Amino acid sequence: MKISMEQVLRGIRPVDPAWRAKARARLDDLAIPLNSLGSLLDLAEQLAAIKETMTPSVARKMVVTMAGDHGVVAEGVSAFPQEVTPQMVHNFVAGGAAINILAEAAGAGVTVVDMGVAADLSDLADQGKILSCKVAYGTQNMAKGPAMSRAQAVQALEAGIEIAGSLIEGGIELLGTGDMGIGNTTPSSAILAVFSGKSPRQVTGRGTGICDSALDNKIRVIETAIALNNPDPDDALDVLAKVGGFEIAGIAGLVLGAAYHRVPIVIDGFISSAGALVAKHLAPNAIDYMIAAHQSVEPGHRYMLEELGLKPILNLNLRLGEGTGAALAMPIVETASRIIHRMLTFTDAGVTA
Amino acid sequence: MKISMEQVLRGIRPVDPAWRAKARARLDDLAIPLNSLGSLLDLAEQLAAIKETMTPSVARKMVVTMAGDHGVVAEGVSAFPQEVTPQMVHNFVAGGAAINILAEAAGAGVTVVDMGVAADLSDLADQGKILSCKVAYGTQNMAKGPAMSRAQAVQALEAGIEIAGSLIEGGIELLGTGDMGIGNTTPSSAILAVFSGKSPRQVTGRGTGICDSALDNKIRVIETAIALNNPDPDDALDVLAKVGGFEIAGIAGLVLGAAYHRVPIVIDGFISSAGALVAKHLAPNAIDYMIAAHQSVEPGHRYMLEELGLKPILNLNLRLGEGTGAALAMPIVETASRIIHRMLTFTDAGVTA
Repeated sequence: MKISMEQVLRGIRPVDPAWRAKARARLDDLAIPLNSLGSLLDLAEQLAAIKETMTPSVARKMVVTMAGDHGVVAEGVSAFPQEVTPQMVHNFVAGGAAINILAEAAGAGVTVVDMGVAADLSDLADQGKILSCKVAYGTQNMAKGPAMSRAQAVQALEAGIEIAGSLIEGGIELLGTGDMGIGNTTPSSAILAVFSGKSPRQVTGRGTGICDSALDNKIRVIETAIALNNPDPDDALDVLAKVGGFEIAGIAGLVLGAAYHRVPIVIDGFISSAGALVAKHLAPNAIDYMIAAHQSVEPGHRYMLEELGLKPILNLNLRLGEGTGAALAMPIVETASRIIHRMLTFTDAGVTA
Repeated sequence: MKISMEQVLRGIRPVDPAWRAKARARLDDLAIPLNSLGSLLDLAEQLAAIKETMTPSVARKMVVTMAGDHGVVAEGVSAFPQEVTPQMVHNFVAGGAAINILAEAAGAGVTVVDMGVAADLSDLADQGKILSCKVAYGTQNMAKGPAMSRAQAVQALEAGIEIAGSLIEGGIELLGTGDMGIGNTTPSSAILAVFSGKSPRQVTGRGTGICDSALDNKIRVIETAIALNNPDPDDALDVLAKVGGFEIAGIAGLVLGAAYHRVPIVIDGFISSAGALVAKHLAPNAIDYMIAAHQSVEPGHRYMLEELGLKPILNLNLRLGEGTGAALAMPIVETASRIIHRMLTFTDAGVTA
């Protein structure tokens, strides 16, 4: 069952253009004016091409919410204290968080993963309420040195890959990403700055809601972390280890695992997109399996989506994370999957084309 | 059961601002960073205020697809022949059209109404597969005179009002609008031009996909219809009668009926918005009950939404009608309804605020 990261990176194939063309031919023949279902048709084409069938099913859906803490919160980058990360994990387990409500509404399950929360959550893991892939009790402070070692980055990535594999083996047909980690817009902005070449000021926002002076401080912290660690944008693992986070690495692994197993994956917001961007830099073909759920109000998310080359399904001014945007987008993805095989063509319907 | 238009117009009350405030107070206390669920919170506030409860349910959903034909197609304004309108009604009844698939995916029913199709559909009505409220076999050609009489406009509006009432009496908690009618972007653009004061050129697009010269012709036809009939923008019934359509009038009536009975209604695309705009001009308070599903690629739809003062939920480059956008948006509206009473507050969850 366990597959190494190297094996996965080598094994991710692009989606077959012949299948794309075949799917598009059927979509063009549906009894509607050409392209009148817009982005829904693009999604339908992607799903059919990924699954290599005209009857792609994405009915069995799972949001994976990866939690981790960040040493960099010591620099005062977040409006919330670090203890909120484990509190929110307990809230997810209790079923009263936004992701629980939104996933239930979407008919999706939620898998909560401790990738590196700075608190002991072994009771929840022992009770089977969360998965424990804890790499450490939070990352190191990236303003003082690398957030994690290269080995830890690989460990977290492989945990994500393994979770994707297990869920898919269990029948999941559509994955969604999610995150929880106080302070995690900071490493996400750092990752984006390194890969895009944009300045930290351009790609950094207020996260859960910090004031002007705290935003200036957050930008300085990211500038310091990048200057100090000097991550190599041509070495995605180096970027992830030096200025990333455990949950971001887990998300990157989940995306890679989905692509390896040829299962579409809905990418949530800013933090999930940072994970997806790491995945894209590790395996460019993985992009074919990604679906962007929404465009966050976090200002850097627009650049993140540009780097990924993905068009978001929703634009609802969300900025929560947890996988909430992914859950909201899933019914639309599922609807797209039904269009291609359930709708009649002009010929079927006896409608004058 | 039958309520007159005048009675409905007098009876539509605005949503109570005290209920809006009460709903917002709870939403502000949810265990998420303030406003981090963006538009979903605005929807939740609207639903709670409409239904005057912290547990608004919109689980029982119905899309009403109103069909009608247009005398103005004689002027060559559409890419499709008029016979497609009844063909598509048969396609809706057969269950293989886009609206069938999308409504099913949303857990919504579809009610198809013959408001004025230029073909005999009495067999479908007799079999209970559609509702027949046929005012006439298509409108008159508005480039030669009024599309319908004022009495016909009232008849079509009251049919829409009555359908809303029956569905709501039957337990429907969320309505959606839909349309089918070859040529119906032409009256919709005309209605928009009259109410907004914008020129036909600004508000007219390609509908199902006409070429440049056909677009020029369509604009000229709308200019002619407005110049000839001289509809009074301060008299919405006059506008509807002179340059409207039977399905547009039915949609306006459906919106008014929903507002009268204090039930939220999801407005589909360009044609539905024309109906909603007529409803707004007849009863300005009705706007409080409307939810804009999406922004169509039909260029005038942006202006239509501006005139309505509504922000669309989706932007998926749709331009099909039938109620497809309304169906796609319904799960998001339903999700919003769950947020307000199912999510834990900071206090409930024991999370540090």
